Amino acid sequence: MNSELSSLQVKDIGEQGLLERLQRFCPPEIIGDDAAVLETAPGQSLVVTTDVLVDGVHFSNLTTSPEDAGWRAAAANLSDLAAMGASPLGITVGLGLPGEVRVSWVERLYQGMTECLQKYNTSIVGGDIVRSPVTTLAITAFGQVHPSQIIRRSAAVVGDAIVVTGVHGTSHAGLELLLHPELGKNLKDAERTALIRAHQRPQPRLDVLPILWKILASPSPMPNDASCFKSAKPPNALAPQCPMPISGMDSSDGLADAIIQICRASGVGAVLERRQIPVPKTFNHWLTPEQALEYALYGGEDFELVLCLPQKLASALVQHLGEGAAIAGSITAGSTVLLHDEQKKFPDQVLNLSQGFQHFKS
Amino acid sequence: MNSELSSLQVKDIGEQGLLERLQRFCPPEIIGDDAAVLETAPGQSLVVTTDVLVDGVHFSNLTTSPEDAGWRAAAANLSDLAAMGASPLGITVGLGLPGEVRVSWVERLYQGMTECLQKYNTSIVGGDIVRSPVTTLAITAFGQVHPSQIIRRSAAVVGDAIVVTGVHGTSHAGLELLLHPELGKNLKDAERTALIRAHQRPQPRLDVLPILWKILASPSPMPNDASCFKSAKPPNALAPQCPMPISGMDSSDGLADAIIQICRASGVGAVLERRQIPVPKTFNHWLTPEQALEYALYGGEDFELVLCLPQKLASALVQHLGEGAAIAGSITAGSTVLLHDEQKKFPDQVLNLSQGFQHFKS
Repeated sequence: MNSELSSLQVKDIGEQGLLERLQRFCPPEIIGDDAAVLETAPGQSLVVTTDVLVDGVHFSNLTTSPEDAGWRAAAANLSDLAAMGASPLGITVGLGLPGEVRVSWVERLYQGMTECLQKYNTSIVGGDIVRSPVTTLAITAFGQVHPSQIIRRSAAVVGDAIVVTGVHGTSHAGLELLLHPELGKNLKDAERTALIRAHQRPQPRLDVLPILWKILASPSPMPNDASCFKSAKPPNALAPQCPMPISGMDSSDGLADAIIQICRASGVGAVLERRQIPVPKTFNHWLTPEQALEYALYGGEDFELVLCLPQKLASALVQHLGEGAAIAGSITAGSTVLLHDEQKKFPDQVLNLSQGFQHFKS
Repeated sequence: MNSELSSLQVKDIGEQGLLERLQRFCPPEIIGDDAAVLETAPGQSLVVTTDVLVDGVHFSNLTTSPEDAGWRAAAANLSDLAAMGASPLGITVGLGLPGEVRVSWVERLYQGMTECLQKYNTSIVGGDIVRSPVTTLAITAFGQVHPSQIIRRSAAVVGDAIVVTGVHGTSHAGLELLLHPELGKNLKDAERTALIRAHQRPQPRLDVLPILWKILASPSPMPNDASCFKSAKPPNALAPQCPMPISGMDSSDGLADAIIQICRASGVGAVLERRQIPVPKTFNHWLTPEQALEYALYGGEDFELVLCLPQKLASALVQHLGEGAAIAGSITAGSTVLLHDEQKKFPDQVLNLSQGFQHFKS
């Protein structure tokens, strides 16, 4: 083996770089979405996603109670299922623990996970506990979806509207308020609590799925291909030859990341309307509009869905979802993701993943 | 919270004690087998199992190459699927890595996992890689099984024969030879290599499943309940009212552990015939019969199957499996697991989990 190659360390290429190198060990059709999809039986696909969380890297007793760490870990995995259109079947929990960890801490962690899972009618179905020098939580979630209803990142088409299912920036705002209690002096107690709560107890948007299937099954939502969806058949009776008109992913790594990933996977560009990106109303009590936008685009962990779909379906979806949901932009030809100001007070700005908070904090 | 309770640490009750306390967070019907079983669709169950492995605790570069560590991790999870009667659909791999780990080490780990999975026509379908102070490998494997073919620990009945699917003690012998090269001077090189190989590259017994289904589908295997199985229908056409006549688990924690666990779960006892427990022929070149028996009963990691089934089915199974497989005993009333010597040179000995190598090494 080449000695230069063999001395290469993980820190030289980063976890993302390593993940890319290891993709050659996976079937190529598996890669590129929030979760893997496996065909298990006619009319049924299994969706699987996994996360590893390490004490001091992904959670900390300083800002997060064990209950909240558990809730957040479960929520992140359920959000990956929602992003694929899948209903949860259960999760497994692998736990590495130093001997000195308190049993009550572990029980509170499980309590938090269970509270989140119960809200979505699912549960912990298996696990493993081992001794480890560092507390480590490995969650695998699995769900099921009808093959015709799988939501992929790669199916966005030019002209699609981009729907965000709720406000963005909330989770990051909550974390900032936890870390810096001196911030947001103008916030009322209830407003502050609501933002912190959004960070501690994010809500995966599994509730959006039945609304999507209802819209898809409703009469004539699609002018271009109405024959596919105009019948009132139940969604699992969708004709297999009809392409799924919805693409998307969750916004766990930020709204900007989600839109850029969808555009990359679909080979398209996008225009986001600066004033159409929904942020919490309370942001204007303590953040400048620029700060609010940065929180929304790059904050992450809001666990909302970012969905690309034909304009008529998008309008129907936003109407059904109510407050917070919005059409935030549209899919364009090319590969650029632009932040546009309809009032033309700001020049168009190209979004990329490397700016984010670096840009904001400098 | 009670202060005595809240100060209780994981090391005070151990991982097993903690696992028992955490079972109240899981649906009760899930607990007690090698893997969890979830009903996903009519005629189909999803089987899920998860393992966490920590560097220095479960694997070590001292005795195990990264390829072998990968193979063994994949094999252990596939063995849990085989123990439930399930065919693998794929595994996810969650990896925690210090930055100083060599990329080539990780690639070799994945190479080993992939080699094992490919042998059983399955693959890595998803994963996560994160920074961690200690190398941690979390594998979740999932498979599918027809609901009528799920192999559980809890279904052994008095009179069942106990079949072991191959020789036992091999993996432990291989590890001893790796750790203490001065042992086994009488072994030929090929014999030594074969034992070490059995430790490094254990073979999960997924190959046993089609043999089981064939035997179950063959005419009149069961004198007591012939109506269930005498037709030549394919196994997935088994009438649902016929109980699955096979119970069992894998022998990953040793043959004694497997039989004791099955007896506990089924509310029965067992008699093992001392001279019917298959060990490798090469054991008599370097181990006393007592040592060989201890290796077989308590060594662990042989990843064979221990199956309890009616005598006629058992005979047919052993005949199909060929060398190594044997009827090692039978299920009895009561709750005692006895080691019996048909030649009466040794008195009956009660097996329990606490003796094992403590007994042997003292």
